[in-house]
Amino acid sequence: MRWNTVALIGVGLIGGSIGLALRRGKHSPRVIGFGRSSESLQQALQHGAISEATTELPQAVSAADFVVVCTPVEQIADLVLEIAGLTRPPCVITDVGSTKGRLVEQVARDPLATSKFVGSHPLAGSEKSGVAHASAELFADRRVVLTPTAETPASALDSVHEFWRHLGAETTELSPQQHDEALAFTSHLPHLIASVLAAGTPTDYLSLTATGWRDSTRIASGDPELWRQILAENREATVTALEQFAHQLDLVHQWLRHADDQAIEVLLRNGKQNRDALGS
Amino acid sequence: MRWNTVALIGVGLIGGSIGLALRRGKHSPRVIGFGRSSESLQQALQHGAISEATTELPQAVSAADFVVVCTPVEQIADLVLEIAGLTRPPCVITDVGSTKGRLVEQVARDPLATSKFVGSHPLAGSEKSGVAHASAELFADRRVVLTPTAETPASALDSVHEFWRHLGAETTELSPQQHDEALAFTSHLPHLIASVLAAGTPTDYLSLTATGWRDSTRIASGDPELWRQILAENREATVTALEQFAHQLDLVHQWLRHADDQAIEVLLRNGKQNRDALGS
Repeated sequence: MRWNTVALIGVGLIGGSIGLALRRGKHSPRVIGFGRSSESLQQALQHGAISEATTELPQAVSAADFVVVCTPVEQIADLVLEIAGLTRPPCVITDVGSTKGRLVEQVARDPLATSKFVGSHPLAGSEKSGVAHASAELFADRRVVLTPTAETPASALDSVHEFWRHLGAETTELSPQQHDEALAFTSHLPHLIASVLAAGTPTDYLSLTATGWRDSTRIASGDPELWRQILAENREATVTALEQFAHQLDLVHQWLRHADDQAIEVLLRNGKQNRDALGS
Repeated sequence: MRWNTVALIGVGLIGGSIGLALRRGKHSPRVIGFGRSSESLQQALQHGAISEATTELPQAVSAADFVVVCTPVEQIADLVLEIAGLTRPPCVITDVGSTKGRLVEQVARDPLATSKFVGSHPLAGSEKSGVAHASAELFADRRVVLTPTAETPASALDSVHEFWRHLGAETTELSPQQHDEALAFTSHLPHLIASVLAAGTPTDYLSLTATGWRDSTRIASGDPELWRQILAENREATVTALEQFAHQLDLVHQWLRHADDQAIEVLLRNGKQNRDALGS
């Protein structure tokens, strides 16, 4: 283990899960939790997700050799820039934001932050939030996408790969733009669709739902404020994915109205093929 | 238990699960399975879902005092009409079709079938099919919608209520039209949406999916042939639900494009409220 002191900026579901994973086993690092509210820090201490807590950012990061920013995505870039000025080499900074383009670009304007920062997005989470739902196993066998730029130092990139692998994840690299285009289809559009589906089901009919509706709409239980931010940060790619979806839905509408049931069945087969490729 | 001999017409996931539930415990009835393929009947016998098997319909139902038609929905009405002529009072016939309007109407044209038949739809299932995935617990605490008409004999209706409650389900009554309108929103539209979502995700991006995409698209793994039939049988109500969804999606598209993020957040909150009402 090459980290003596890890600082977690934000100790909710993701930050808490990182802390729990780091602190299992014997030679675990100091894990310092930073948060705005001392209540959530207390909870994180009680759950064993952090070993120390502070509401002062300099105190949280000045001794750290690895910092993970686990806040809502809108706050990440500003925090990374601030933390870059509070830490000493070879400290490395990463994050867990669900979108990457805008924040990586903002960080890239600052040479000091660029020399320390590598963007990360662990493809793991839950519709639930808070350290009470954190799990040391959240990242086991999950994928974490790293989004280095041409200016990212190789040593920082290596360190971030190693960090996530230590938590049981497999890592992969994409450009921030590739990441955002892909996640628009695999995460941001599905979230919007689930919300429209859940919001549009007449409440009288909720007692007539079964596992299909429940599964299809599960992510609509996610935190609306967090998701407003994610959708706003990845507006352009999400609009593109939404337009493709709406175009396809319009075709389906015509097929269904005009009883072109063979076209419907081809769609159902294509959907099944993509879904079955992933297993259950 | 008031059934000595139950005939299951079709022994897939649903028929097999009914058989397993009936055959637990001591004083279980004879459970005769009917199917077109002797292979699936053999499987059903091996899994203990039926006690006898036949590929001859008269042999399956002539001694039965309760018949459940568990075939794909397109075949149900014709089978009910045929079985009505092969059974003697007080034999009661029900089904498990996911749509009710068209098939109940077709049965209602025949007085003999009307005197014996009550439509049922257990709101339980799986994206998997076949008796190998059947479970005696499939109906436990699930809702079964019964769709009697003004001509349905009270004794037959009572018998069908009792049958499903014996399997652990709670029963409720709706008109066939009410059922189909509600299920268009709670099941048929979500299935179409999941299929469009799954089919529209570029295959290159499948490795970048997480639990959100998986949950949202799980039902897209369902049998395309079965679902083509369901959507065709409930065409009108599904088109209506689809049009409402598409209209809402168009609003969301405008909000997202024009950065009306407060409107997006209201949608996310409404979706969360409906979804949270059901629990996880």
